[in-house]
Amino acid sequence: MKVGNTHYRSIWFDAEKAKVMIIDQRWLPHEFRVVELDGLDEFATAIRDMWVRGAPLIGATAAYGIAIEMQRNASDEALDNAWERLNETRPTAVNLRWALDEMRKVLSALPESERARAAFRKAEEINDADVETNRMIGVHGLEIIKKIAATKKSGEAVNILTHCNAGWLATVDWGTATSPMYHAAAAGIPLHVWVDETRPRNQGAQLTSWEMNSHGIPHHLIVDNAGGHLMQHGEVDLVIVGTDRTTASGDVCNKIGTYLKALAAHDNNVPFYVALPSSTIDWTVDDGVREIPIEERDDREVTHVFGRLEDGSVASVQISPDGTPGGNPAFDVTPARLVTGLITERGVAEATREGLLELFPERRDAA
Amino acid sequence: MKVGNTHYRSIWFDAEKAKVMIIDQRWLPHEFRVVELDGLDEFATAIRDMWVRGAPLIGATAAYGIAIEMQRNASDEALDNAWERLNETRPTAVNLRWALDEMRKVLSALPESERARAAFRKAEEINDADVETNRMIGVHGLEIIKKIAATKKSGEAVNILTHCNAGWLATVDWGTATSPMYHAAAAGIPLHVWVDETRPRNQGAQLTSWEMNSHGIPHHLIVDNAGGHLMQHGEVDLVIVGTDRTTASGDVCNKIGTYLKALAAHDNNVPFYVALPSSTIDWTVDDGVREIPIEERDDREVTHVFGRLEDGSVASVQISPDGTPGGNPAFDVTPARLVTGLITERGVAEATREGLLELFPERRDAA
Repeated sequence: MKVGNTHYRSIWFDAEKAKVMIIDQRWLPHEFRVVELDGLDEFATAIRDMWVRGAPLIGATAAYGIAIEMQRNASDEALDNAWERLNETRPTAVNLRWALDEMRKVLSALPESERARAAFRKAEEINDADVETNRMIGVHGLEIIKKIAATKKSGEAVNILTHCNAGWLATVDWGTATSPMYHAAAAGIPLHVWVDETRPRNQGAQLTSWEMNSHGIPHHLIVDNAGGHLMQHGEVDLVIVGTDRTTASGDVCNKIGTYLKALAAHDNNVPFYVALPSSTIDWTVDDGVREIPIEERDDREVTHVFGRLEDGSVASVQISPDGTPGGNPAFDVTPARLVTGLITERGVAEATREGLLELFPERRDAA
Repeated sequence: MKVGNTHYRSIWFDAEKAKVMIIDQRWLPHEFRVVELDGLDEFATAIRDMWVRGAPLIGATAAYGIAIEMQRNASDEALDNAWERLNETRPTAVNLRWALDEMRKVLSALPESERARAAFRKAEEINDADVETNRMIGVHGLEIIKKIAATKKSGEAVNILTHCNAGWLATVDWGTATSPMYHAAAAGIPLHVWVDETRPRNQGAQLTSWEMNSHGIPHHLIVDNAGGHLMQHGEVDLVIVGTDRTTASGDVCNKIGTYLKALAAHDNNVPFYVALPSSTIDWTVDDGVREIPIEERDDREVTHVFGRLEDGSVASVQISPDGTPGGNPAFDVTPARLVTGLITERGVAEATREGLLELFPERRDAA
């Protein structure tokens, strides 16, 4: 989407430099830094240390990571090693493994001499497919927003709450949860977005707010605690969030705190939608709460907060006393019973096994 | 409670200096600063700008504020003016008005010449009564913890989640939600406390963590988003929070985000208790969600986070882009249906009108 007046993707191959470029998201919203990724180590670091984040973008980055490595060494051993190295960077994101498997499937069938070129072609294909997938999520999500807009007085905004950043910065373009918003804005529907700051890493404050600002969508940043109160008072028309992994029965694993918003939405009859590319559906998992392992991250993310000082420099402040340890589960699982619908590139599915199979009938045979 | 090896209250009259002393809580947990309050303006500032916070301590501070003003000018006009000035500092805390009314009732019946001395005596009485009230909350809450501890294996900790700071720093001593914890620790029951950081002002991270640290109670600081996930996985045995205002039917107005924890507790069959002195019951209000006005605070609390830099100095960092406004409702209301019980100084009440009236039968006639 747009930054200033220029259209960007969150990752792209710069043919002139022959380098993969990314927006280093650690500095947003304070600095807009574009950096090139140089070799497998840096790709692994970029994913693990969240220079890039968001399930689809992680997958896209991993695909380019394989391609860059094939340029250096296209042996089977290098391919397997790159697969391993990239796969271990983030245990929760199912797209990561999906993209790596797609790359290996194409490449292992080819002689070494053809792998580098084919790898870049496949990585571009994965990236372009991601853009199209997210565009279609927006097309289907727009219909939901249109129906709510039709119940409003003329000029009255549709209030959407979102958690974390399932925006274009989390994908290659459009975003998942934000794609319906960008489509609604393009369709001239008045919108207002409540942006959960999304502690501990504040991706809402840092990234979603920045996207909304850049695109000119009216919004307010709120603390993660505020959404329930807003729903009790009719200030939220619908919730749209993204997901890192959706189970075959519609349970949704997403950034920690999503479950609390789903509970509040359910308690106040606010529709709760999850936007997802079908690549984030893990058809091998059924009960998300019991089966999905939850990444426990560094407790410094809890005890410290990153931001910009008055002099314009960036720094982390410690918010807690020395000696207090932090607990930092990074994701939670929202049971399907709390989900109104799953907005996919093929349409909106009921959050049940049957609902998903109706949209993805090819999985019926696989099951 | 203890700071280092010295026992402190959160507010006290220093007879030698003839001054009211407080712990200026804005600097915790990074600096332990004791300051004297000098005149009505400073009392109003201390309450409004949260040098002191927590419903009971706000009441206690306001009582001393009246006493200090009576020293300067004991006229009816000065008394009314002081009442007004202090009452407007924080609109949500019902104790504030209660303490001010108690003071005015005693003082307006006296000749001007007797007011200053009587005011200090009454303020001391309000403070001592608060300590005793919170001690009794701990005595009753201890019984709940004991029952849960009895179901555990020997040595296994009882896991308690709390939100915000309803600790001794929010009262004169003991705290409300923390009083059962301090009593349980004294009784030798193994405890572990999950401390919600409690954005936007991080009173959990700054104050409750500091209290737990100072007292040696094992604890982890968590983001406000984490509690639901922990409850889904059996990591929370009970929740105990405080309240700024409880309605006659048991709805609980407390720091923003409390409602979300109550929903998660309910969804996972985790007992959800609210600890409160009966002075926070507003017998004139029934439906908390509809009737209690919610304070909307400065959006800088949302867009900025205060903490300690690596060099030891304290500062605020901006977490959001320039141009993104914040929304900052400071409290929410947890409906009584989600509350397991109300721990008061007289015992544990069911969160219903009838439950409260059983403990406070004198209100039956008033109603």
